[in-house]
Amino acid sequence: MPPCCCSGRRCAAAALALEQERSERLLLNVLPAPVAARLKQRQDVIADGFPDVTVLFADLVDFTRRSERIAPEQVVQVLNDLFSAFDQLAERQGLEKIKTVGDAYMVAGGLPDPLPDHARAVAVMALAIRDEVARHADPSGRPLAVRIGIGIDTGPVVAGVIGRQRFIYDLWGDTVNTASRMESHGVAGCIQVTARTYQRLRDAYRFERRGPIDVKGKGEMVTYFLLGRNE
Amino acid sequence: MPPCCCSGRRCAAAALALEQERSERLLLNVLPAPVAARLKQRQDVIADGFPDVTVLFADLVDFTRRSERIAPEQVVQVLNDLFSAFDQLAERQGLEKIKTVGDAYMVAGGLPDPLPDHARAVAVMALAIRDEVARHADPSGRPLAVRIGIGIDTGPVVAGVIGRQRFIYDLWGDTVNTASRMESHGVAGCIQVTARTYQRLRDAYRFERRGPIDVKGKGEMVTYFLLGRNE
Repeated sequence: MPPCCCSGRRCAAAALALEQERSERLLLNVLPAPVAARLKQRQDVIADGFPDVTVLFADLVDFTRRSERIAPEQVVQVLNDLFSAFDQLAERQGLEKIKTVGDAYMVAGGLPDPLPDHARAVAVMALAIRDEVARHADPSGRPLAVRIGIGIDTGPVVAGVIGRQRFIYDLWGDTVNTASRMESHGVAGCIQVTARTYQRLRDAYRFERRGPIDVKGKGEMVTYFLLGRNE
Repeated sequence: MPPCCCSGRRCAAAALALEQERSERLLLNVLPAPVAARLKQRQDVIADGFPDVTVLFADLVDFTRRSERIAPEQVVQVLNDLFSAFDQLAERQGLEKIKTVGDAYMVAGGLPDPLPDHARAVAVMALAIRDEVARHADPSGRPLAVRIGIGIDTGPVVAGVIGRQRFIYDLWGDTVNTASRMESHGVAGCIQVTARTYQRLRDAYRFERRGPIDVKGKGEMVTYFLLGRNE
């Protein structure tokens, strides 16, 4: 071992600084920076209202059933590859990844920092997600051959952190439930949005109107399929 | 301001140590310690197989619909009170809280550290959750009047962390899907378990057999309602 390059005290301080940097980097991966700062101050509940954000749910249609013949470790590897790519798309659009739930992925635009044109940023991400899934392969190298269902809504949410353990930054409210319903009541391979989201995007994007559909817990809703950007 | 008690250098080191302690405490709230340690070493994917664990899902039946007339901030406050109590129950039984998803709560026994008798510990928690919900009040002080549906399965899972952002320690596999189905195909106010979980518990707990039911994605299954401890 080479002799120590500096006084022992300085080495200890450098080691502590390195350890702090590693903890902090991982922490800021898990929680948005302003939320982490408030939790460090031992704030009890964080529940912030945001009047206008866009929420997206993406679900791999039939992925659970199709992956039954593959070792679970490989399934997790496929999800990791795919969701890591989604994370990069979210970062590029300035969106906030909220969480993955099994084989579903949730992202929002317009929080915790404001984002002008969050509906547009989420639409760009939705179209990119569809392309990304088509490019990925299963563990044996074949195309994934899964289709993704995507649902989007725009409106108010409450964002925060609840409980005492295993904090995650999460969203609640009707906008969240409706975005999730747009996904679960959608069509594989399609991006279904509410009228609220459609109104924000109709000038720049092409849509197909879907006649009123019956949405669980909501009743009849007119929805739209996002097809692509206007030429 | 009183004069500084020590040399400036020592103050800086103490401040760094305090900052490190705060970051680390919050980090170990978010992720299990051994998982946080591996992520700090920049391990790419964590996907560990566990051959035998017990998974519980608890869902507040109709909570979303019932809470439509309450301000979302108050809804989040009610969920925070309830799930904080669940977190304490989980800690007392040595269980690993996995996450909350909207108004659902997920916990597991037997990972990341082994837990002998994890099925029993989860059964104790399930019965305690039901009592806890009965004790809680809504924002106006009335009893919550929501019932909870609970589903449990025992078997192998893959546990780990995927993606590049917003890590959470999560579980995948048939045991997870089946536990979730036991909840979604259950009865409000009841604790529904699979035959695998029942076999572990039948000597010490009372059950009611439920004739075979049709479970989405699984086919026909004989299930059991957990009623309480044997006298």
